[in-house]
Amino acid sequence: MGGDHAPEAVVEGARLAVREGLPVVLVGDEARLRPLLRSDDDLPCVHAPDVIGMGEKPSVARSRAGASVRVAADEVAAGRCAGLVSCGNSGATLVASILSMGKLDGVDRPAIATSLPRLDGGTLYMVDVGTTADANARHLASFALLGHALAVTEGVPSPRIGLLSNGSEPGKGNRLVRQAQPELAALGLDFIGPVEPNAAFEGRCDVLVSDGFTGNILIKTAEAVIGMLTRHARRRVMASKRARVGAWLMRDALHSLREELDWRARGGALLLGVPAPVVVAHGRSDADAVRAAVGLAHYAIDARLVDAVETALGAAPSTDRVAVSGGPGAP
Amino acid sequence: MGGDHAPEAVVEGARLAVREGLPVVLVGDEARLRPLLRSDDDLPCVHAPDVIGMGEKPSVARSRAGASVRVAADEVAAGRCAGLVSCGNSGATLVASILSMGKLDGVDRPAIATSLPRLDGGTLYMVDVGTTADANARHLASFALLGHALAVTEGVPSPRIGLLSNGSEPGKGNRLVRQAQPELAALGLDFIGPVEPNAAFEGRCDVLVSDGFTGNILIKTAEAVIGMLTRHARRRVMASKRARVGAWLMRDALHSLREELDWRARGGALLLGVPAPVVVAHGRSDADAVRAAVGLAHYAIDARLVDAVETALGAAPSTDRVAVSGGPGAP
Repeated sequence: MGGDHAPEAVVEGARLAVREGLPVVLVGDEARLRPLLRSDDDLPCVHAPDVIGMGEKPSVARSRAGASVRVAADEVAAGRCAGLVSCGNSGATLVASILSMGKLDGVDRPAIATSLPRLDGGTLYMVDVGTTADANARHLASFALLGHALAVTEGVPSPRIGLLSNGSEPGKGNRLVRQAQPELAALGLDFIGPVEPNAAFEGRCDVLVSDGFTGNILIKTAEAVIGMLTRHARRRVMASKRARVGAWLMRDALHSLREELDWRARGGALLLGVPAPVVVAHGRSDADAVRAAVGLAHYAIDARLVDAVETALGAAPSTDRVAVSGGPGAP
Repeated sequence: MGGDHAPEAVVEGARLAVREGLPVVLVGDEARLRPLLRSDDDLPCVHAPDVIGMGEKPSVARSRAGASVRVAADEVAAGRCAGLVSCGNSGATLVASILSMGKLDGVDRPAIATSLPRLDGGTLYMVDVGTTADANARHLASFALLGHALAVTEGVPSPRIGLLSNGSEPGKGNRLVRQAQPELAALGLDFIGPVEPNAAFEGRCDVLVSDGFTGNILIKTAEAVIGMLTRHARRRVMASKRARVGAWLMRDALHSLREELDWRARGGALLLGVPAPVVVAHGRSDADAVRAAVGLAHYAIDARLVDAVETALGAAPSTDRVAVSGGPGAP
C-alpha cells in the first residue's frame, strides 16, 4: 500500500515477478487490491485495514498493528513469508521489522545498505542511507559492522571501512565524524579513516559509513546528477543531426554504461541487522522497480544473506556491544 | 602558499591571469616565490613567513599573524588589494577574512556559496558549502539571507529558498532540518521548505541552504559522479570501434555539455558576508583553476558584488540579528 504509485504499480510489479517464478504474497486493503487482480494471477492476499503514510512519523508503527507494513512483517516473523518488500515509509518499515522480528545478536541499530558501482570495477557498500538521520558515534560503529558483514558475505575478503567526510585531513569533518573515528578504530576492522565522495567512488574503500541523512543526500545527489546528465545529453544530441548519427553509433556503449550505473535497477536497498531479508524500495517505484525489489528480496533469501551476515557479525573482531560502546571491554 | 600544488601552480595561474589583464599580488614566502618568477612577470610579492596547513584547525589563524592568508587578508583590509583568492585551508581563510575585514552588517555567520547549473537552465545557489560543518538553526538563517542577497544580486528578482533535506514530507530531515524550518520561515523571504537534491537540480528553488558539511558532501558527490561518468564513458567508447566513430561525431555536443556542467571552471566559491570579495578555490587547483579563481575575484570586484549583497541584505525583510535569532523583534 506504500509509495507514490500504490497499489497499482505494486500489484503490477508483483505480477511481473510471479511470472518470472518469484512468489509474492500481497499485504494490504483487500477492497483495493482485489479489483486490481486478474483471474489468472497467482497472488494470494493478506488483509491489512490500515496504511502508514509517507509523511507520518516512523514511531506511529508501534501502535498501528493493522498497518500493511506491520501485518507484512508479522507474516515474515510467523514464517509464512521469507522476506519483506516495502515501497512505503522506510522508517516505519524499520520499526515494524524490529517489532515483529527483533534484531540480530550484536546489532545495536539496524541500517539500510545500498551498493554503488566504483570506477575501479569494485562495489561500494553504503551504510546507512536512510533509517537513522540523527545517528551518534555508537550507531556509526554498528553501521560499520553491518557493512563489513555485508561486504564479506558478497565476497570481499577483508573490506576496507571508510567514514564519509568532507575531507580526510584531521581538522575536517563535522562533530559526529570526529567523535566516531575512535569508535570505528576500536572495532578491530580495517578502518581507513575519513573518506571523501570522490575517493570512495575511485575505490579507496569497500564500505562507506555515514549517518542516514548524509548517506541519503549522497545517493540522491548521485541519482540526480546522472538523471541531469542523461537528459542534458539527450537535448544536446537532438539539437544536432551529426550528433544524432553519433549517438546512434554509440548506442550500445551508452546503454551498457547506463545499466551499470543505474542502481535503481536493483530495486531497492537492504535493511541489515534484522533476521530476515527486508527490501526498502524507492517511494517512486514503478512496476519494473517493484519487480526488481522482489527480485532483490528473493536473491537475499536464496543466497541465505541473513545467515551469512550473522556469521560475519559473529566472526568480526568485536561485535559485543560493550566494545562498540567503548565500555570496559573496549581496547 | 596553500593547496596541493602550491606555490608552483598558484604562481603559474597568477601569471596566466595577469596576461589576461587581471592584476595579481602574490602573498607568501619570498624565498620560495622569487625563484618561480620570470624577469618579464608583472607579479609583485608581499612577504609572509608562515603558512597554515590544510590539516590544521581554522582557529590557529587567530594567533598566526604571519601566515600567508592572514597577510593577504590584511592587504585587502588596508585597501592595497581589492579581493582575496586562496587555495588553502578554507576555514582559515574564513577566520583570517573576518579578523582583518570584519563582517557585513546583519551577517551572523559568513558562508561559502557556489552556483550549480539546473536542468531548467537556471542557477542553483548553494550556501554553505564548507565553512560551518556543525551549523545550528540560526546559522542556516544567516546562510539563507546571504544566498537570497547573492541571487538578487545576480538578477533573480524573488529567489525561492529551499532547505536541503532527504525528503520533503514533515517527518523527514534530521534534527537540524526540523529546527531550522521555523527560523527560515520567520525571515520573511520566499522559503519553500525542505527540498531534495533532485528537486533542487530540477529547479524547485533558487537558493539551497545547508550546513557546510552536507553542502560540501553534495557538491563533492556531484563532482565525483560527473568525473566517474566521463571516465566510464571514455573507457566504453575506446573498447568499440563503432562507438569511437560515434563519439567523434558527438564530440561538439559532449564538449558543450561538459563545459556547462563543469562548475570547477568557475575556479572556486565565494565567501559571502565579508566586506570584500574572497574566493575559496579548490585545494586541488591547477594553474588553470587558479587563473579561473582570480577571474572570479575580478568579476566580483568589477560587478561590485559586495555592495550589491550589502544592499540586498539591507532590503531583505528581516536582516537585523534580533529577528534572525528569534528574539523580541522576530515576527
